[in-house]
Amino acid sequence: MRMESLRDLYISELRDVLDAERQIVKALPEMIRACSAEECRSAFEEHLEVTREQVKRLEQVFDSLGQKASSRKCAGMRGIIEEGKEILEQDASGPVKDAALIAAAQRVEHYEIAAYGTLCAYAKELDFQDQLELLLETLQEEKDTDEKLTGIAENIVNVEAVRKAG
Amino acid sequence: MRMESLRDLYISELRDVLDAERQIVKALPEMIRACSAEECRSAFEEHLEVTREQVKRLEQVFDSLGQKASSRKCAGMRGIIEEGKEILEQDASGPVKDAALIAAAQRVEHYEIAAYGTLCAYAKELDFQDQLELLLETLQEEKDTDEKLTGIAENIVNVEAVRKAG
Repeated sequence: MRMESLRDLYISELRDVLDAERQIVKALPEMIRACSAEECRSAFEEHLEVTREQVKRLEQVFDSLGQKASSRKCAGMRGIIEEGKEILEQDASGPVKDAALIAAAQRVEHYEIAAYGTLCAYAKELDFQDQLELLLETLQEEKDTDEKLTGIAENIVNVEAVRKAG
Repeated sequence: MRMESLRDLYISELRDVLDAERQIVKALPEMIRACSAEECRSAFEEHLEVTREQVKRLEQVFDSLGQKASSRKCAGMRGIIEEGKEILEQDASGPVKDAALIAAAQRVEHYEIAAYGTLCAYAKELDFQDQLELLLETLQEEKDTDEKLTGIAENIVNVEAVRKAG
């Protein structure tokens, strides 16, 4: 792949994050099934829906660039999801497992915050105003999800995990 | 490894981030050598020093817990660094390569922001005040580095990458 301009790099990063989003759509159902707390499960379910919309938004960006929405393997997200799957194999349950699942999900969110932050900076520099608006919308959603998960962890799951251990 | 309490999970997450930090210390020199812009190189060099201190801070946390500072393989950081290495093999140069290196470094920073954010929440819930202070110090450094890299990208590297392409 040519990488001679910021536009080339922008397209390459879009392909990376498209793969990341698709990996998340595949991985979330198993994490949802592993949740104990209702708040945790419903936050993940909501994020699955949001992620599907984010994939569509990326497809609109590719459209606007006149490019095919093809992805390239995102090694970063693969590693982060691999870590999430390790939790499913651990001998944990209840609020401790929920806390671990939230920790994994926040790593996913922060990967996306970094990736969309970069994409927004490129779209702005390249003066792709419509694409920038789509990417900013997703960036805000990722930040909102991260904050919501922090709230569930700090106010419900972590408290319960400590209480249970006595 | 036992994972019955938030304390068990806390120790497991500490071992994960210790491995992540050690991976970063190993990976940064190659990224530093690949930089073109002085601002980019010096930010990475500074971060290498900061990361070495963060490893020491983690060792203090293990000490305070009466635990050996042993790490466990952090698959997330391995994937993120693998992505960074892909950049070194790409046919990019000058400001475009610098922009890609900064994008990779910001993914590293955000992984750490998520990980230390989680650790701080656990330390607070477990009432480990001294450890919390150490972890909060590192969390703030990661956020500062991320902001600094955003500034270098938006004010220098991305601008130059677009200018160069004409």
